[in-house]
Amino acid sequence: MSIQLYGYWRSSASYRVRIALNLKHIDYEYVPIHLVKDGGQQKSANYQLLNPAMLVPTLVDQDKDITLNQSLAIIEYLDEVYPGEQTLLPKHKLDRARVRMLAHDIACDIQPLANLRVLHKLRDELKAENEQVNYWAKSFIESGFNALEKRLATRSGKYCFGYELSLADVCLVPQVYNALRFGVKMDHYPILKKISENCQKLPAFVEAAPENQIDAS
Amino acid sequence: MSIQLYGYWRSSASYRVRIALNLKHIDYEYVPIHLVKDGGQQKSANYQLLNPAMLVPTLVDQDKDITLNQSLAIIEYLDEVYPGEQTLLPKHKLDRARVRMLAHDIACDIQPLANLRVLHKLRDELKAENEQVNYWAKSFIESGFNALEKRLATRSGKYCFGYELSLADVCLVPQVYNALRFGVKMDHYPILKKISENCQKLPAFVEAAPENQIDAS
Repeated sequence: MSIQLYGYWRSSASYRVRIALNLKHIDYEYVPIHLVKDGGQQKSANYQLLNPAMLVPTLVDQDKDITLNQSLAIIEYLDEVYPGEQTLLPKHKLDRARVRMLAHDIACDIQPLANLRVLHKLRDELKAENEQVNYWAKSFIESGFNALEKRLATRSGKYCFGYELSLADVCLVPQVYNALRFGVKMDHYPILKKISENCQKLPAFVEAAPENQIDAS
Repeated sequence: MSIQLYGYWRSSASYRVRIALNLKHIDYEYVPIHLVKDGGQQKSANYQLLNPAMLVPTLVDQDKDITLNQSLAIIEYLDEVYPGEQTLLPKHKLDRARVRMLAHDIACDIQPLANLRVLHKLRDELKAENEQVNYWAKSFIESGFNALEKRLATRSGKYCFGYELSLADVCLVPQVYNALRFGVKMDHYPILKKISENCQKLPAFVEAAPENQIDAS
């Protein structure tokens, strides 16, 4: 198979890329990199050759001879190289900016603060209690969701950007999955909740869900 | 003036946008939002109307009737709407992906973990000592720079992506500024150091530097 995705079932950045590949009906081989087992398989010498940051996901496109990390860079790449029937960035420049803004609200201001390596560092190096770690993640997610709920009040529809699926939805659904793990109450965010539920009805999102991956445990 | 940039002198996301505007010779009005004074001016009711996330930067382009947050979304917007003589994303799709990847390495995996709101939370809510807070920021920056130094070994030249300035350089220079504040030794990263110094020779970067802003103190 020409495309390999190295990922972890629960990583929301990996989850984003799985959704995008599914929405575009791109066949790919999923290669699990377990972030906990074996002291973290992302630290193996072989994986470091692919991605020296020792993070997931990494996408290898053999046809194009390119190896990419960073989920949003990967998804923009897929959108440009394999537009297919489902593009994820709108055509109009102003609309593209609005969608990128929403996606980055999640990918730069929420997700980086509540992922595994950060929570491990709080626990292992700052000796934070489990309760403090949970509160840390939850409060950053909530403050991000508060802002996003207000931002979405103006232009959202069935999805984050009106009635067309976009990169913003691809980022939102994994973030909601993550939020629920930390006990965030989605009833406080009716727009985010509605959009996430609308997306979850689509097979591309269902098939990309963490619990449906071969490495889920 | 048609473009306003709401920012903070030391915010590296604001710094990125200033560099991009300067490189494109776009006139703009800089509106300082002091993140510490008055309990944080980003929390004012007026600013929240512009940006409910209470973060900087925010760019208002009156001609196009658009308000945008998220530095990378703003810069991609500027690049698409005002390409001018200095574009910041390469023309070739594969190269665009590579540049975005490097930019996101900084904007998603390094900067979010060492900014003011995160360090304040460590100090105020987790009761971390100053030394622990400094170590937190420094170690995330160092692990990001370790990976970036390896990634840049293959395709960098005078700048991150060969001999053309790009979005990656616009992200790198503010991150190096931030790294130095936390005592990161740039001699450990000869490629990053060289590229950052090459950029610093350009007026667009010098004029965007924190110490040259009207709100510097």
